[in-house]
Amino acid sequence: MNSLSIPKTMKAWVLDGPEQLRLVEKPVPEPGPAEVLIRIDAVAICGTDVEILTKGLPAWIRGGLPFNKNFTPGHEYMGTVTKLGAGVDEVKVGDRVAVEIHAGCGRCQRCRMGMYTSCLNYGLNYGEHDKGHRANGFTTDGGFAEYAVNHVNTLVHVPEGMSDEEATLIVTAGTAMYGLDVLGGLIAGESLVVTGPGPIGLMSVAVGKALGAAPVILTGTRDSRLQLGTRLGADHVINVQKENPVEAVKRLTQGRGVHYVMECSGAPNALNEAMDMVNRGGRICLAAFPGEPVPVDLAKLVRNNIYVYGIRGEGNSATHRAAALMTQKRFEAKLMHTHTFSLNELPTAFTYFRERIEDAIKVVLKTH
Amino acid sequence: MNSLSIPKTMKAWVLDGPEQLRLVEKPVPEPGPAEVLIRIDAVAICGTDVEILTKGLPAWIRGGLPFNKNFTPGHEYMGTVTKLGAGVDEVKVGDRVAVEIHAGCGRCQRCRMGMYTSCLNYGLNYGEHDKGHRANGFTTDGGFAEYAVNHVNTLVHVPEGMSDEEATLIVTAGTAMYGLDVLGGLIAGESLVVTGPGPIGLMSVAVGKALGAAPVILTGTRDSRLQLGTRLGADHVINVQKENPVEAVKRLTQGRGVHYVMECSGAPNALNEAMDMVNRGGRICLAAFPGEPVPVDLAKLVRNNIYVYGIRGEGNSATHRAAALMTQKRFEAKLMHTHTFSLNELPTAFTYFRERIEDAIKVVLKTH
Amino acid sequence: MNSLSIPKTMKAWVLDGPEQLRLVEKPVPEPGPAEVLIRIDAVAICGTDVEILTKGLPAWIRGGLPFNKNFTPGHEYMGTVTKLGAGVDEVKVGDRVAVEIHAGCGRCQRCRMGMYTSCLNYGLNYGEHDKGHRANGFTTDGGFAEYAVNHVNTLVHVPEGMSDEEATLIVTAGTAMYGLDVLGGLIAGESLVVTGPGPIGLMSVAVGKALGAAPVILTGTRDSRLQLGTRLGADHVINVQKENPVEAVKRLTQGRGVHYVMECSGAPNALNEAMDMVNRGGRICLAAFPGEPVPVDLAKLVRNNIYVYGIRGEGNSATHRAAALMTQKRFEAKLMHTHTFSLNELPTAFTYFRERIEDAIKVVLKTH
Amino acid sequence: MNSLSIPKTMKAWVLDGPEQLRLVEKPVPEPGPAEVLIRIDAVAICGTDVEILTKGLPAWIRGGLPFNKNFTPGHEYMGTVTKLGAGVDEVKVGDRVAVEIHAGCGRCQRCRMGMYTSCLNYGLNYGEHDKGHRANGFTTDGGFAEYAVNHVNTLVHVPEGMSDEEATLIVTAGTAMYGLDVLGGLIAGESLVVTGPGPIGLMSVAVGKALGAAPVILTGTRDSRLQLGTRLGADHVINVQKENPVEAVKRLTQGRGVHYVMECSGAPNALNEAMDMVNRGGRICLAAFPGEPVPVDLAKLVRNNIYVYGIRGEGNSATHRAAALMTQKRFEAKLMHTHTFSLNELPTAFTYFRERIEDAIKVVLKTH
Repeated sequence: MNSLSIPKTMKAWVLDGPEQLRLVEKPVPEPGPAEVLIRIDAVAICGTDVEILTKGLPAWIRGGLPFNKNFTPGHEYMGTVTKLGAGVDEVKVGDRVAVEIHAGCGRCQRCRMGMYTSCLNYGLNYGEHDKGHRANGFTTDGGFAEYAVNHVNTLVHVPEGMSDEEATLIVTAGTAMYGLDVLGGLIAGESLVVTGPGPIGLMSVAVGKALGAAPVILTGTRDSRLQLGTRLGADHVINVQKENPVEAVKRLTQGRGVHYVMECSGAPNALNEAMDMVNRGGRICLAAFPGEPVPVDLAKLVRNNIYVYGIRGEGNSATHRAAALMTQKRFEAKLMHTHTFSLNELPTAFTYFRERIEDAIKVVLKTH
Repeated sequence: MNSLSIPKTMKAWVLDGPEQLRLVEKPVPEPGPAEVLIRIDAVAICGTDVEILTKGLPAWIRGGLPFNKNFTPGHEYMGTVTKLGAGVDEVKVGDRVAVEIHAGCGRCQRCRMGMYTSCLNYGLNYGEHDKGHRANGFTTDGGFAEYAVNHVNTLVHVPEGMSDEEATLIVTAGTAMYGLDVLGGLIAGESLVVTGPGPIGLMSVAVGKALGAAPVILTGTRDSRLQLGTRLGADHVINVQKENPVEAVKRLTQGRGVHYVMECSGAPNALNEAMDMVNRGGRICLAAFPGEPVPVDLAKLVRNNIYVYGIRGEGNSATHRAAALMTQKRFEAKLMHTHTFSLNELPTAFTYFRERIEDAIKVVLKTH
Repeated sequence: MNSLSIPKTMKAWVLDGPEQLRLVEKPVPEPGPAEVLIRIDAVAICGTDVEILTKGLPAWIRGGLPFNKNFTPGHEYMGTVTKLGAGVDEVKVGDRVAVEIHAGCGRCQRCRMGMYTSCLNYGLNYGEHDKGHRANGFTTDGGFAEYAVNHVNTLVHVPEGMSDEEATLIVTAGTAMYGLDVLGGLIAGESLVVTGPGPIGLMSVAVGKALGAAPVILTGTRDSRLQLGTRLGADHVINVQKENPVEAVKRLTQGRGVHYVMECSGAPNALNEAMDMVNRGGRICLAAFPGEPVPVDLAKLVRNNIYVYGIRGEGNSATHRAAALMTQKRFEAKLMHTHTFSLNELPTAFTYFRERIEDAIKVVLKTH
Repeated sequence: MNSLSIPKTMKAWVLDGPEQLRLVEKPVPEPGPAEVLIRIDAVAICGTDVEILTKGLPAWIRGGLPFNKNFTPGHEYMGTVTKLGAGVDEVKVGDRVAVEIHAGCGRCQRCRMGMYTSCLNYGLNYGEHDKGHRANGFTTDGGFAEYAVNHVNTLVHVPEGMSDEEATLIVTAGTAMYGLDVLGGLIAGESLVVTGPGPIGLMSVAVGKALGAAPVILTGTRDSRLQLGTRLGADHVINVQKENPVEAVKRLTQGRGVHYVMECSGAPNALNEAMDMVNRGGRICLAAFPGEPVPVDLAKLVRNNIYVYGIRGEGNSATHRAAALMTQKRFEAKLMHTHTFSLNELPTAFTYFRERIEDAIKVVLKTH
C-alpha cells in the first residue's frame, strides 16, 4: 500500500498579516522524492508560533519581505504517513510519526558536517533556488492544517501506546536533548541548572534527570510551573521572586556552582546570572534569548573559561534519542499537555496559550 | 551559460570481467538535480582500480552479483564543469574541479551525522531503491571516460596554476587529511609514523608535516620511495628491510614511542608493529589492510588504551582542507606524478602502475 | 578531627609467588600530601586479581622483575577515611568512599590531557623515580588488607544507604561507563550489544540501559548470567551456544546491525563478530582481550569505517558518573554480589570466584 | 649535574601598590618536588602586566585582599634550568625553557579533565590550603626577577637557534593556538577573522595561517600593526577606521561570512560584530574582553547556532604545539619583538609598552 485515501483539498489556516489567521481550503500537497504526505493528527502551539502570529515569519521580517498570504504556520505536529514520495522506504503508509522542524539541504558545508539545523541554504526551497531546505511552519507550510509534506529526515516514529497529544512533545524534548548534547552529553552525576520553566525548560529538566544529572535545579517565577518541574525530575526549584537564584544555586552546591546551565527563559539578565552560577570551565546553552541587546559581562566568560552555545532547534538527531527516552517512559511528558481543541478552534487555542488561561502550558489541536 | 558544447556520445572504458577492459562509445550522461556533468581532463590510477580490474567491484564480489558489463571504473579524476543540473549554483560552467568519491544519500543516520563516506545506503542508487548514494568508479560510472556526472557535494575547486595532473591527487591528499582528522587533528609538534610509502602514505607524510607534526617518520621497503617521502616532508625514513621499524621508532623517539601511526601498507604485521610504536594512549589509523585475517595481539590495545580507526575514503570534507594546503603550496604533490598517457592507453597505463615500471607512482591519463 | 584511632600494624595478604598468598602483619601505611588513609570495609575479587594470583603482576611479568614479596594485591575496595594527608579537604575523616584504581602522575602528556589511566609514568612511584603514579593493587599496595593509602583523585563518595558490598561495585560500573564514554556517550535510543556477561559486561548492560540505549543485547554462554543481564536491563539476551550471535543481532535489528559493541568476553573471535554486528561507521570498545594474538579481519575495519577503542580501567572520571546512577538507584548493582567472606578467608573466596561455586559473580570480603 | 652555581639572593621587582614597583633583593626560591629553579634570561611585558601594575592582581581586587607587598609579577619569561626538585627528569640542568603560566592542582575536576587553566583550586597554593596550583606572575612569584620556580608541567623546551627574546613569545603563540583549538582545530582552508592586532591577535594570525586557514583576515585601527599582520600571514587586513569591518568581511567572502572569529581586541562591540561576521553555525573565541558589561544581541547567537568560547590562557598543551611551529620556523614571531631593556630598566620598559613609544609591541627585559 503506497497511500491511504486522500482528499483533493484540505482545511488549513493561513496567516494574512499580523494576528490575521484565516481558515481556508487548500489543495492537499504532493510529496516529492524523499518526502511523505502526513495526515496531521495533533499539533501543539509553541511560543515561536505566537511570535509568527504577531510579527510574521522571521525570514519575512529580517528580509523585509511582504507576508506570503498563503502560508500555513505550525511546527509541533504528529500524524499518520499517508503517501510515500519516490524512493521512500524508511517509513510505511500507516506509520505514526512525529516531526522535526529542520530538513537541511544536505549539500551545504553545515549539512555535510551534520549540522542540519544550521543549514546555510536556510529558506531556499522555491523555484530555481530550490536547495531542498525545509523548515515546516517557518519557511514551508506547516501543521495548522489537515495534511503536510515532510522530508523523511524529519520523521520520528511514535511508539504504540503514546497518545497523539504526548507525541507532539517529542520535538520539544528533542530540543532539550540537543541542548544537553552541546553541553557535552556526559551529564550523569553532573550538576545542571535550568532557567525558565517553559516547555523547553521543563523538558530540559526531564531529559537531564533521565540521563542522570544531579542535582537538577530549576528556576522560575511561578510556583505552579516549578511544581511541575519537580514532578518532571527537578531536585530543587528556586522561585526567583522569592530568592536570588545565584545565591540559591551557590547554597545548593556548597558554594561550588554548577557544571551546566540550560538557559530557557530569555530574561535580560539570564546570561549574566548563568555565568555566576557555573564554576570555572562551566558551560551554558542558550535556548532562549531576550528581544533586544542586553548588557553582558564578557570578562566573566573569558576569566572563567566559560563556553556559551546558542542552539537553533533540535539538531544532531537528538529528537530520536529524546523519543527513545519517552518510549521507555523515563519521564511523564504528558504532564505538560494541559488543553485540547479542534483544528477549527485555533484562535481560541492561541488565546489560552498566550494568556496562560487555566495555567495552560501545551495547548494541542486534535486534527483527526 | 549553463553548458559547454557537449557531444551525444563519448569514449569510455568498461569492464567486462576480470582483466577485461574494453573501450566503447557510450551516451554522455545527463546531470540530475544537484548534479553536474564534468568533462574529464585527467584521471589517475589508484591501487583500488587494480583491485577492481582483477576481481571486479567489491559490491559485486561480496554481493555475489554478476559483472555489470557496462560499468566504467576510475575515481581519481578532475575536469571542467560542462553542464549544470537543476538547482546548482555552487559551481559554474567552465570551473575546474577535482572530485571526492563519495556522495552520501543525505538521509541515513550516518549521513545525517556528517559521516557520508559511511553512508548506510551505500550502493543504493538505482531504480526504485534510489537513495541518491553515488561512489563514482565503485557503484556508479567513473572516470576512465570523457565525461562523468557528479553530485555537487563531491566537487572541489582546482585553483589556477595547478596542473590537471596534480589536481588528480587532491582526493588522495583528502584521504590522508581525513586519517589525520580521525587521529585527533591537533598534530602540530606531535610525533607521527606513516607506514607504507604508497600514494596515501606519501600524502600522509606531506599533509602531516604541513600541519606541523614532528617528527614525521616514514617506513617502507624501497629507498626510492623513502627518498620521495623525505622530499615531501618526512624527518626520518626507515627501510624495514634494513632495520627493525619498531626499534628504529623507539630509537628516534628516545624510547617514548610516537603519538600517532597512519598505517598505509596493508602488511600483515603492520597493526602489531603500530601498537608497539605508539605510546600508552596512542592512536592508529588504518587506511590499508591485509587481504586476509591476520594475527593481532589485542591485549596491547586494551592494556595500553590504544584506539584504532578504520577509515573509508575521504570523509569530513577533508578533501577541501587538503586542497587548501595544496593551493597554498605547502607540499609538492606533483612529485608523486610520474607518468602520463592518453585515455586510449589505459591498459598500458595499468601495466606501468602494476609493474611499477620506471618506478611509477601516480600514472595519469590526460583525457582532454 | 583529622584521624580516627589507628593501630600501628594491620593484617594484610601478600603474594610471595604464583598462588602463594600469605597473611602477614604489616605497618599501617602513612598518607602523604594529597593522600588519605582508608580503613578498608569491603573488597571484591576481580578477574584481574586471579591473573595476578596465578602469574604475578603484569609489570613484573613484562618487566622480567622478581616478585615483590611484600606486595598486597586487591583493587575493588571501599572503606572509611581514617586520616588525612597534608592539604586534603576534599573528604573528611569518617567519610565512606569507594576507590578508582588509577591515580595518574598529573605531569605526563596523557595526564595533562585528562587520560590518567594511560599515564606515561605508570608504575613510577618508588624512590628517585617517584612520579606519583599509583595503581593500588597493581603497582602500589592494594586492598586485601585492613588499611590502604589512596590519592584523593581516586576517591568516590559512597551515598548513605548503599551497602559496603554494593559500593565495591562502583569501580566496575565506572569501567563500563568509561567504555560507553569512548563509544561516544550519546547512546539514548542507540543500539548496543554487550558481549560477555562477566561483571564489566553486566555493568555495561546496566549503565547502557540507564542511559537509555535501546535495544541492549547481551550475549553469553550461561543462561543464569544472561537472566541476570535481563534483570539489569538487557532487552534481549543471546546464548551463543544455542544461536549464532551475529545472526541473532541481525535478526533483532531488522538486518541493520547495531551502533555499538562493548566487548567484555575476551573470546578469540569476539572482535570479528563485533565487526559483523555493527553497521557501517559503528564503534567497538574492547574491555577484555584474548590471552594470545588472534586472527582479525582488518579489511572489515577499513571498509566499514569502524573504530575500535581499547580501554584500560575507569578513566574520564566515569566512576563518579556511574556512582551517581547507582545513588539514583537506576539499576540494582547489588544483584551481582553473590558471596561474602571475611578477610581471613581470602583463599576460600578466590576458590569460589575461580570455580564459580554456586554461580559466584562478585565475591566480597567484609573487612571491618 | 643537578644544579648550576646559584646565589643565595637575587634581584627582583615587587609591587607595593598600584604603580609602585620596587627593585629588591630577595632569597632565591627553592624548587619543591616536580619543580625546577629557572635562571630567567628574558622576560616580556604583557598587557595583563599593565593591568596588574595599575590595579593589582585580579585575585586581590576581586577578593578584596590587601596588596602582597612582596609579590613579583611577570609571566612571559624564559630561561635556563638551574636546579631540579625531587623526582624531576623531564628536563636537565642547563636546558633552555620557556614557560606556561598555569600549573593546575592536578586534583580538581577540571584538572582531571585536562582543563588545567580552569583549575578549581586557582590561587590555592599557600599554607594549609596548598593544592599546588601555581600561576606565576598572578598567584605565585613571577618573572621580573633573576630566578623563578616553575612546575615541570609549565616547561617548554626552547630549540637551539631560537633567541631568548623570541622564546618569550612562545606562551603568546600558545594562547593563540589554544584559541584555535577550542574553535575546532581543523582550520586548514577555513576562513578566519582575527579582530585586534595586539600580540595575541598577531599570533593568532600567524598560527592560523601556519595551520592553513584561508583566508585569514585581520582587523585593527593602526596600519603599522596591520602591516605586521600581513607579514605574519594575514591574507587581508581591514582598518576599521576606514571601512566597516562586517561589510569588509562579507565582501571578502562573497557574502558568505567566515567560519571562525578570534576576538582579541576587547572592543565593546566586538562580539556583536563577530556574530555578524560568522556564518550560521560559526564559532567565536573570546581572548579579550571589555572592561565593563556591554550590550550583546543574544538573539543572533541563538538564531544562528553560534558558539562562543571564553578562553583563559594557554590550555590543552597548546604551548607545546605552538612552540613546535616556531621551531619549524613556520612564521617569524620575532617580528613582534621591538625593544630590549635590562632587568633594572623595568619602569622604562613599561613606559615604552604602555605608551607604544616607537610603536612598541613586545618589549623584553634581558635578564642574564
